[in-house]
Amino acid sequence: MLTRTESLSALLSPSSVALVGASDDVTRIGGRPLRYLREGGFAGAVYPVNPRRDTVQGLKAYSSIGALPETPDVAILAVPAAGTVQAVRECAERGTKAAIVFTAGFAETGDEGRALQDEMVSVARASGMRLLGPNCLGVFNSSIGFYGTFSAMLDTGLVKPGPIGIVSQSGAYGSHLMYLARLRGLGMSHLITTGNECDIDVGEALRWTVEQPDINVVMAYAEGIKDRDTFIEALEVARQRRKAIVFMKVGRSEVGAHAVSSHTAALAGSDAIFDAVFRQYGVWRASTTAEQLDIVAACARGVYPKSNSLGIFTMSGGFGIQMADDAEVAGLDVKPMPEKAQEELKAMLPYASPRNPVDATAQAVTDLPLMTSFISAMLEKGDYGFFAGIFGSGPASPTFSGKLRQALETAATASRDTIMTLTMTAPDEIVRTYEDKGFIVAQDGFALIRTLGAMVHFSESFERAGKAAATAPLPAPVDLGTDALSELAAKKILSEAGITFPSDRLVPPGGDIRAAADAVGYPQVLKVVSADIAHKTEIGGVIVGVKDADEAEGGFAAILARAAEKRPDARIDGVMVAPMVAGGVETIAGVVSDPVFGPVVMFGLGGVFVEVLKDVTFRVAPFDTVEAHRMIREIRGYAMLEGVRGAPPADVDALAEMLSALSRFAAANADRIDSIDLNPVRVLEKGKGVVALDALIVPRGAVVEGH
Amino acid sequence: MLTRTESLSALLSPSSVALVGASDDVTRIGGRPLRYLREGGFAGAVYPVNPRRDTVQGLKAYSSIGALPETPDVAILAVPAAGTVQAVRECAERGTKAAIVFTAGFAETGDEGRALQDEMVSVARASGMRLLGPNCLGVFNSSIGFYGTFSAMLDTGLVKPGPIGIVSQSGAYGSHLMYLARLRGLGMSHLITTGNECDIDVGEALRWTVEQPDINVVMAYAEGIKDRDTFIEALEVARQRRKAIVFMKVGRSEVGAHAVSSHTAALAGSDAIFDAVFRQYGVWRASTTAEQLDIVAACARGVYPKSNSLGIFTMSGGFGIQMADDAEVAGLDVKPMPEKAQEELKAMLPYASPRNPVDATAQAVTDLPLMTSFISAMLEKGDYGFFAGIFGSGPASPTFSGKLRQALETAATASRDTIMTLTMTAPDEIVRTYEDKGFIVAQDGFALIRTLGAMVHFSESFERAGKAAATAPLPAPVDLGTDALSELAAKKILSEAGITFPSDRLVPPGGDIRAAADAVGYPQVLKVVSADIAHKTEIGGVIVGVKDADEAEGGFAAILARAAEKRPDARIDGVMVAPMVAGGVETIAGVVSDPVFGPVVMFGLGGVFVEVLKDVTFRVAPFDTVEAHRMIREIRGYAMLEGVRGAPPADVDALAEMLSALSRFAAANADRIDSIDLNPVRVLEKGKGVVALDALIVPRGAVVEGH
Repeated sequence: MLTRTESLSALLSPSSVALVGASDDVTRIGGRPLRYLREGGFAGAVYPVNPRRDTVQGLKAYSSIGALPETPDVAILAVPAAGTVQAVRECAERGTKAAIVFTAGFAETGDEGRALQDEMVSVARASGMRLLGPNCLGVFNSSIGFYGTFSAMLDTGLVKPGPIGIVSQSGAYGSHLMYLARLRGLGMSHLITTGNECDIDVGEALRWTVEQPDINVVMAYAEGIKDRDTFIEALEVARQRRKAIVFMKVGRSEVGAHAVSSHTAALAGSDAIFDAVFRQYGVWRASTTAEQLDIVAACARGVYPKSNSLGIFTMSGGFGIQMADDAEVAGLDVKPMPEKAQEELKAMLPYASPRNPVDATAQAVTDLPLMTSFISAMLEKGDYGFFAGIFGSGPASPTFSGKLRQALETAATASRDTIMTLTMTAPDEIVRTYEDKGFIVAQDGFALIRTLGAMVHFSESFERAGKAAATAPLPAPVDLGTDALSELAAKKILSEAGITFPSDRLVPPGGDIRAAADAVGYPQVLKVVSADIAHKTEIGGVIVGVKDADEAEGGFAAILARAAEKRPDARIDGVMVAPMVAGGVETIAGVVSDPVFGPVVMFGLGGVFVEVLKDVTFRVAPFDTVEAHRMIREIRGYAMLEGVRGAPPADVDALAEMLSALSRFAAANADRIDSIDLNPVRVLEKGKGVVALDALIVPRGAVVEGH
Repeated sequence: MLTRTESLSALLSPSSVALVGASDDVTRIGGRPLRYLREGGFAGAVYPVNPRRDTVQGLKAYSSIGALPETPDVAILAVPAAGTVQAVRECAERGTKAAIVFTAGFAETGDEGRALQDEMVSVARASGMRLLGPNCLGVFNSSIGFYGTFSAMLDTGLVKPGPIGIVSQSGAYGSHLMYLARLRGLGMSHLITTGNECDIDVGEALRWTVEQPDINVVMAYAEGIKDRDTFIEALEVARQRRKAIVFMKVGRSEVGAHAVSSHTAALAGSDAIFDAVFRQYGVWRASTTAEQLDIVAACARGVYPKSNSLGIFTMSGGFGIQMADDAEVAGLDVKPMPEKAQEELKAMLPYASPRNPVDATAQAVTDLPLMTSFISAMLEKGDYGFFAGIFGSGPASPTFSGKLRQALETAATASRDTIMTLTMTAPDEIVRTYEDKGFIVAQDGFALIRTLGAMVHFSESFERAGKAAATAPLPAPVDLGTDALSELAAKKILSEAGITFPSDRLVPPGGDIRAAADAVGYPQVLKVVSADIAHKTEIGGVIVGVKDADEAEGGFAAILARAAEKRPDARIDGVMVAPMVAGGVETIAGVVSDPVFGPVVMFGLGGVFVEVLKDVTFRVAPFDTVEAHRMIREIRGYAMLEGVRGAPPADVDALAEMLSALSRFAAANADRIDSIDLNPVRVLEKGKGVVALDALIVPRGAVVEGH
C-alpha cells in the first residue's frame, strides 16, 4: 500500500487518467475535465469512459474501467450517486491508486447518502485506493497540465504555474480563490478540494502540500477538521520548512456554526480553539477573502523582512499619518530616521518632514531625482525591514508611471534587504509592471499594512520553529480510573507531573488535627476531602483563616458534622489542612477536551477577568515554555502579572513552567482525561514560584456532581 | 457682512471668479483651474489676472484685481507666498467675498510663515472677506461647473453631479477620494479642501455641506478640529437631517499623532475623545479609505434599512457561513426564515438549506426560475432589512450576467422595502448594470457586510435624533474661584447639581465628634477635610470601619494630630463623618477638559477595569440620559452592572441620570473647570440609586498638590 504522501502524489501527478462519465459537452461536469486536460497539454494517457459512446471529444471512449488498455493511476468519477459505488468498485478491482469523486448526494444529504458514502469508503479501503470527495470539485496540478476538476472558472483560462497551493474543503471557495488569484496575475501550483472528506481531508492535503518544494505559500479553507494529528503535523512541518499558511476558517459565529453543522459532516469544534491552534503554529487566520489574497500574493516569493520596522515615504502628510496609524495596529515599528540623516534630508528640502513618515511634499512629484535621493537615504540609513511609498493615482498616468518606476528602481539599489512596497491606484497592467520589478503593490494603505503585519508574523513564527528545543518527553500515563477523584488524589497525581501545591496534610476522621495544624503552620485553611463532594463550599466544607490549634480543632469537627448532615451518602476521607497562601496574582488554569483537538490547556486571570471578561486563552497540548510565555502574554489583563498599583512583578517564568508541565501531563493522558481545573493558581512574586490552591481532575467518562 | 452660511455659499456658487496668477500652461497650478472652469462649462464670468500677459488660455488677462471690470465674488490665488498677502489686500479692497489660497509656505513651515498667514488673516477679517486655505487644493461645485481647484485628478475627467459631498483638510486626500469615487461611477456635488484653515475649517465646511438639500452623504477627512462648537453643530444638524457622515480621522497612533503635530497647525486633541464624539453624534469613523468609499457609495441614495436583519442567499454553503460570521461581528441579525417558509423551500429543492443562510446549492445556477422562487420567498416571507445574494464570478460572464440580473429584478419585486445587495467579482461595466438597477454590489463579502452594518448605524442614529427630547436646561454657572476646593465644598456644589453623596457631617477641630458620629450612624468613615490636602490617605487622613462613638472620638483626634504633624502648612476645616456605603458596583466618573472639545465626561468601572484594562468611555458635555445609557453600555465590563456571580442588577437608570447631571454641570461651567473626579461611585441595587463617595473639583488654573 502507498504511504499517505505517495498516494497524494499519485493523485496530483498521475501518468494516466480515466474519466468515468465522460461527456462530449464541454460545459457539463463530465465534459469540462477532458477539455481542460487537453487545453492544459497533459502528457499522460487520458481515457474517457462512457458505455454509450465510441468517442468523446474526439478521443476513443471505453465502456468501463475494466475495458481500459491499462490501469489508470487516477479515475475521475462524474456519474450519478447511485452509480458511483459501482464505479469505485471497478476502479478498486483494477488497482487504480486514487479516485476523485465529483458527485454530490452523499453524506451531506442525510442518512441514506451517508450509508452510500460509507459503502464506497469500505470498498476503497479494502483495496488501498484513496478517495477525494465525494461532493468535491477535484484538483489541478498546473505544472503538468493535470486538470482533474470541473471548475467553471477555468472556462476563461487555465492557470500558470507558481509557488501557491490551494487546499479547500469547499470547491466553490477554492475555485473562487483560484479565480481571484488569476485575476491578480498570480501563478499557482495546485488546487485540492476535499468536499465531504470521506477519505482525504484538508489536513492530509495540507500535509502533502507543505512538503512540495515548489510551494512557498498555501491558501486554505475549512469549516472543520477531521484528523487532528495530521492537521497539527501539517502546521508543524509548514513552519519548520518556512511555508506560510493563510487560512480562512469559517463558523466563528453562532449562526455560522449552525450553518456548518447543517452544511457538512465535519465536526466544527470550538472556534476559539481553532484560533488558538492557528496562533500556536503561526498560521495566519484571514478575516476576509481579500486579506487572504493580499497576504498570499506578498508571501509568494518566500521572502520575509529582517525586522518589523517600516519606513514610510509620502508626498502628502495626511496619507503618511494614516499609514502610521495602521502600522501601529499591525505591530509594525515606524521608527524615526537617524538624526543625522534627518538633517541631511532637511538640507535637501527645507519643508520636508524627515522623521518617519518621511514627507517630501508635492515637490517630489515634479522633481523625481529629489524623490530618488530621499528614498535612497531612507534605505541606506533607516535600516528598515520594509519600505512603503505612497503614490496615490499618480502612476495611473502611463507617461508618469514609467518615470516613477525607473526612479524607484534606482532608489531601491540602495538596499538589498529592505522589502519594497507601494500603494497606488492604477490600472492592473501598470500595477503588474511594478510587481514584475519586485515591488509589493496595494491600492489601499490599510490592506498593504495588514499584509506586512502578516509577513512579520510568519517571519517570527519561522524563527521560533527554527529555535524550538526538543520538547521535553511526556510523563508516563497515569491510571485515573473512571471515578471522580478527590482533591487530595488529584493533587498527588498533578504534583508528580510537576505542579506545585501548598504542603498540606490530610487528617482522617478521628485523626490528630492539632498536630497536623501545628505542623502546617498558621494561618491555614481546612477543607473536606471527598471524591463525592465537588463543590465543597456549598456544604460549608471549607473554613479559611484558621489562626491556632483550637480553631483548627473546632473547624475540623464542624466540617465533619456538616458533611455528615448535608451529604450523608458521601465517602469522607477526612479534612485537609493547608497553609493560607497570601499575595500573588490570582489566575486559573485547566485542561478541556476539545472534540476536534483533544486536550487543550486553558489559562486566564481569576475574578472578573474570567467571569466578566472571559479573558482566557488556549493552547493544544503539549507545548514548551516558550509557547507558554506567548500564551500568558495573550490575555488582556497581562499587565496584572507585570505588577500594577505598586505590586511587584509576578513569577511568569514559573507560571510558564507550570502550564507546560500541565500540557505534557494532559497530552500523556489525552484519552483518560475529560477535564482538569486548577483554580485558583497564585502566581507569587518573581522568584517565588507559583502555587495551585485547588485541583479537580475529571477522568474520561466519570460522573461528577453538578457536571 | 455675510453670515457664515452665506459666505460659504458665495465661495461655492460664485457668479464671477478671478484667477490671480493665471497661467497659459494647463499643467501648472495657475493654469489648471482655468482649464477645468472652461471644460466644466462654468457660466459665470472668469477673469484671469496676470500682469505679464494680455491673454491667458485665450481669455483676456487683467493686470490686477483692481483692473477687473467688476468685483469678482471669489478670487483664486495661485501666486507665491510672498505675493499672496498683497493679493488678499487687493481683493479685500475691491470687496471680494472670498478667496481661495492655493499657495503653500505659511504656518505649516514655521514661525515666519505663520506670521505671514496671520497678516493675511487680519487683512481679510478687516473687510469681512472669507479665506479658504492657504496650502489648500480648493473647491469644486459640479452642478455649476465651478472648479476652483488645481487637482491633477481632474486631468482625466471632470465630476458628474451627485448626492455626495467631500470635506477634507488634506487636499491630496480629498482629491484621492474624488478620484476613487469617480472610478466607481459615483456622482459628487462638491469638494472643499481646507488646508491650513486660517479661516474656514473642516467644521464650517461640514456645517454648510450638511445643509445642502442635494447632499445625502459626506466623506470627510481631518487631522484635528479648530472650532469645537461649529463642528458639533454640524454633526448635530447632519443627524437631524438624516445626512450620513463617513469620517477619516487620522492620528490614532503615537507616531501618527506626532506626525499630525508636525504636519499642520491643528491641535490634534485626544483621539479617544474624537472617537467618543463620533459615536455620540452617529458619525461613522472609517478605518480604511476603501471602507469610506464603500459606505458612502451605499448611503448615496439616502435609503436606510427598516431593521438590522439580513437574509443571505447562496449557492455554496461555505460562502454563506463566511457571510453569517461577518454579519454577527457587524451587528446584523441573520434571523431564520419562518418555519413554514422553510418547509416550502425544502419542498422546492430537497437538498437546500432553507434556514438562513438560504443555500439553494449549485442547482440554482442552472435553474434561474428556481433561484427567483427562492429569493422571492425570502423577500416575501423573511421580512428582512437587507437581502444579500452571493454570486462569485458567475456574473463575470456577459451572457449569464444579463439573465441573472433579470432573474434578480423579477425576484426583487416581491418586496419594496428590503435593501437588495449582492457580492460578485465582475468587470466594472457589468457591476454598473446591477448598480443601475438599485443593487448595492461589492466584490468582497466582508466589505459588503461592514457597509450594511454602517447603514444600520446611521439608521439608528437618525432615529435617535428624531426622538431626542429637548435637552434639560443647563444649571446656572457656579463661582468656583481658582483655588483648590475641599472635598466638602466640592460635594456641596455637586449636590446642588444633582449628584448624590452620603449624608455626612463636618466636625471642625474642637467640635462635638460623638454627637455627629451618632447622628450619621455606624459603621462610618472619618476623613480629613482640607483644600490643601488632595491625597488624604497618604497622610493617614482617612479611617474606615469606625464602629462606635469611642472609636470616632479616637479617630478624630488621630487624624487631626497626623494632619498637624505631616502638613503643618495646611488649612484644616475639620473631619468629615460619613456612613460607610456597602454593596453595589464600584465605578468612577469624572470630567476632563479636552483641548479641542472642552468638558468631556468620563465613565468606567473601578478597580482593575480602569487600572489594568483602561475600560473607560467618554462623551462631550452636555448629554441626555439616553446618551448616558449608550455610554454606560459601551464599557467592556458592562456585565458587572447587569449583575454577575448572583449579584442583583445595578441601578443603571440612576447612573445615567447622574452622568447626564454631571455633564450639564460641566457644560454650564466649561470655562471654570479643569477636572472633576467622582471616585468611587457606588451603583446600588436597581431602585436604590447611586452614591458618589468622594469628589474632587479642580477649578481652571488652580494649583493642586500632586497635579
